[in-house]
Amino acid sequence: MQTIQQPIKFLQQPTSSAWVEQTIAHLDTILLDHSHCERKAAGVALNLICRYPSSAKLVRTLTAIAQEELEHFEQVNQWLDRRGIALAPLAPPPYGAGLKAQVRRNEPDRLLDSLLVSGLIEARSHERLGLLAAHCPEPELARFYRGLMASEARHYGVYWTLATTYFDRTVVNHRLEELANVESELLSTLHPEPRIHS
Amino acid sequence: MQTIQQPIKFLQQPTSSAWVEQTIAHLDTILLDHSHCERKAAGVALNLICRYPSSAKLVRTLTAIAQEELEHFEQVNQWLDRRGIALAPLAPPPYGAGLKAQVRRNEPDRLLDSLLVSGLIEARSHERLGLLAAHCPEPELARFYRGLMASEARHYGVYWTLATTYFDRTVVNHRLEELANVESELLSTLHPEPRIHS
Repeated sequence: MQTIQQPIKFLQQPTSSAWVEQTIAHLDTILLDHSHCERKAAGVALNLICRYPSSAKLVRTLTAIAQEELEHFEQVNQWLDRRGIALAPLAPPPYGAGLKAQVRRNEPDRLLDSLLVSGLIEARSHERLGLLAAHCPEPELARFYRGLMASEARHYGVYWTLATTYFDRTVVNHRLEELANVESELLSTLHPEPRIHS
Repeated sequence: MQTIQQPIKFLQQPTSSAWVEQTIAHLDTILLDHSHCERKAAGVALNLICRYPSSAKLVRTLTAIAQEELEHFEQVNQWLDRRGIALAPLAPPPYGAGLKAQVRRNEPDRLLDSLLVSGLIEARSHERLGLLAAHCPEPELARFYRGLMASEARHYGVYWTLATTYFDRTVVNHRLEELANVESELLSTLHPEPRIHS
């Protein structure tokens, strides 16, 4: 299966057709993993709000993001319910931890890296939900993915804009490129378990 | 100042008039603390969802609670903005940590205690927002508190109902009484800094 897609801003390498084949063969597991992704995305936004309580623009913007992620979490859970898939824990792929390991410990680097890592995850999610929308054999589910895609696209723009609010644009773009290389590298070998970020 | 109020279900002791006097004299600080309370309440709900990912009723119910708390967080932050109060960290009173220390470490006790502690915090918030609504000298702000009160009342019912979903009602009520005694004890000496839970 050949995946034809527009290159997504921020991402160094497009997703392989092997990922598409893996996910289309395991739509139920992907839905369950997706539920965890949305919950984690809400948690990440809330943690950033908690860590930078005086940064008004960050607080305002990420409150809206957390609200949207919770809405998506609810919607994915409704899909699980409709398909009779029980909520359950699911071992995450190495992707999230691999990216988190790139976040430098000292401020203000920590803030910059946290925003860019979140932006990259949103960009990749946008790309992959787009692939699911294009290749999912169930029209209603494909439509659902297409709907979510647009939000993810907005979200990565939001994280990038936040980064440029607090940091010089040249610094942001340089670090983004470094992190984007790591991000693509982390996905260069397909994780054996089907996941949104396998 | 005498506080006249209906006793709130769950709470062993009503709030003192000293607390009302303290808060009415420091409305701006109370609004800032309130913002932190709403964010923390959303975080607590999200953490419970994360800790008990297979408990469908808990996940569904607490997703709705987290969404509402985030909405209130946003509303309180709009009030801060309108009054020209900058977002900032604020040292919490000993109340939250004191209650958290009561949560037993082993499951299933941990789940029961977590739900009941959250329920008690919501019950106390309900009572205190009601007092703010009744005593706040600014009519528009008083109206805002009155609006939030209703949600807090619903929330403590939700936490209690969740507890009775996973535990025997006698066990729930016995533990609730123990925790409610601690909760009232924690507030028996007014914290010198004005806070929602001082």
